[in-house]
Amino acid sequence: MNKKFIIGIDLGGTNLKVALLDLDYKIKDKEVLSTRSFMEKGQLILGILHSINRFIKYNHLSKAEILGVGLGLPGPIDAKSGIVHFFPNIPGWKEVRLRDILRKKLGLPVFLDNDAKLMTLAEHKLGAAKGFQNVLCMTLGTGIGGGLIINGRIYRGFNNAAGEIGHLGINENGLDCNCGASGCLEAYVGNQRVMAETRKAFKRKITPEELSLLAAKHNRMAIDIWRKTGSHLGFALAGVVNLLNLDAIVIGGGMAKAGEVLFTNINSALKRQAMSVQAKRVKILKAKLANHAGLIGAAIMVKEGL
Amino acid sequence: MNKKFIIGIDLGGTNLKVALLDLDYKIKDKEVLSTRSFMEKGQLILGILHSINRFIKYNHLSKAEILGVGLGLPGPIDAKSGIVHFFPNIPGWKEVRLRDILRKKLGLPVFLDNDAKLMTLAEHKLGAAKGFQNVLCMTLGTGIGGGLIINGRIYRGFNNAAGEIGHLGINENGLDCNCGASGCLEAYVGNQRVMAETRKAFKRKITPEELSLLAAKHNRMAIDIWRKTGSHLGFALAGVVNLLNLDAIVIGGGMAKAGEVLFTNINSALKRQAMSVQAKRVKILKAKLANHAGLIGAAIMVKEGL
Repeated sequence: MNKKFIIGIDLGGTNLKVALLDLDYKIKDKEVLSTRSFMEKGQLILGILHSINRFIKYNHLSKAEILGVGLGLPGPIDAKSGIVHFFPNIPGWKEVRLRDILRKKLGLPVFLDNDAKLMTLAEHKLGAAKGFQNVLCMTLGTGIGGGLIINGRIYRGFNNAAGEIGHLGINENGLDCNCGASGCLEAYVGNQRVMAETRKAFKRKITPEELSLLAAKHNRMAIDIWRKTGSHLGFALAGVVNLLNLDAIVIGGGMAKAGEVLFTNINSALKRQAMSVQAKRVKILKAKLANHAGLIGAAIMVKEGL
Repeated sequence: MNKKFIIGIDLGGTNLKVALLDLDYKIKDKEVLSTRSFMEKGQLILGILHSINRFIKYNHLSKAEILGVGLGLPGPIDAKSGIVHFFPNIPGWKEVRLRDILRKKLGLPVFLDNDAKLMTLAEHKLGAAKGFQNVLCMTLGTGIGGGLIINGRIYRGFNNAAGEIGHLGINENGLDCNCGASGCLEAYVGNQRVMAETRKAFKRKITPEELSLLAAKHNRMAIDIWRKTGSHLGFALAGVVNLLNLDAIVIGGGMAKAGEVLFTNINSALKRQAMSVQAKRVKILKAKLANHAGLIGAAIMVKEGL
């Protein structure tokens, strides 16, 4: 009767996912739309409104049963004031007071945060990072995102910008990075770079999924690409482990699907490079919540008012 | 009458400093001894006992007026159980229950921790990091030590081993480091390396102090060495700033005395490499408590029971 629901939203570079979740973070209904249709705030609001109305209608709910709306967004967010600073991969958004705009139009409580932070919240509450006190969660995709759990709680830093593991430098005078700097981890293990290496090796376009399958079938070139990728990641993560003496590192995102061939190489590079006291402790784990981490994290943010 | 005092001890690679501090962390009396005489636990205990007795006698105190003894030690320490894991630069110490040993012999409460952690405590309570919430404190010496303040409190990590900024990798396949890994920041900006570069440039042995003086007098070669050192540091710190969205970085230790020529180059390398949201916020500051940071931090640990 009094059961409440949460709207979780995950805006990515490709898809806009909108879901209805219950208070146990189970997904009851879900829509996946193309991000291209939501370049403008007005269109995003319309899309969300449309989904909510559909959820209400088909699940025989009333709006009063919606506890609130949580959004995970692909860029730097001021979570306290609800402002989107900008999106690196979606043009037209600059210093937008999105929370206030949505709250007014929807008549519901609205929370927003960076998508990697929400993935971190979700993995810590329900996924691979559960029970650990000091954790780095990272996503391997077009960009390399990250979030930190410190002393059992999400760590934001001064501007809610902490967690940018993709922009830890691993080579002075190294490869140019999309962020404008050079030698960043993302320049070596971001999707673009790995796919460029793959094209060079195989003389044709290959998806990360295919590359993983080829490695599983003992293809030398595919194994070699994952070995290099794991080695870059292990080198970067060793520095983070030395600095933060973490309990666990959780790795998700499209490329993490490569599985063992990638994780074995990350582990051996990390063990080679990290200090013994810190290396002994840390566990490298695969993210558990996969594509739903963003939606679940958005719902956790709404329920816990984080 | 009821005024209490604290014994602060700072064991370094060269000197053992023992001081009597009041509860406002003012140093009332101090002895500097050679570390070489204290390679064994028994000798260290005798040295401390001798200093305490001397402090009591010359300051007309009684042992009851000593609140406790705090030690800063140059290696990985289990602060909770009071165990020294080992000292990288002092042989003969391995898994020593130093707190229990000292407590029994001295009949006083004893606390111990890693020296860089105590420097961090001191700079945050009374020095350059005062008032900041998220800070990396680092010391530039033979080794590169570090400690973190996160959300206004000292951050230890799981094994009290957090803060090892010297062993953040800045070049894959880079210079060999004393820790056994390669490409660590310490391999590029540790005293040994900088002095080796200096000898190569000047064809003679030059101290860091002399190198700073030469730079102040516009010597090209000296300026160039500090420029390179600052550039390595700025590159490493940019990664940390991106990851932790820090408010401040405090830099101390012998080499930090180079002053402006070093700090300007750290700053420009960091601004070039760090992301704009994080770079805008962070302040690079010179440590304030100089050689006394370890002693003051040891006293803070005793008074606050940290």
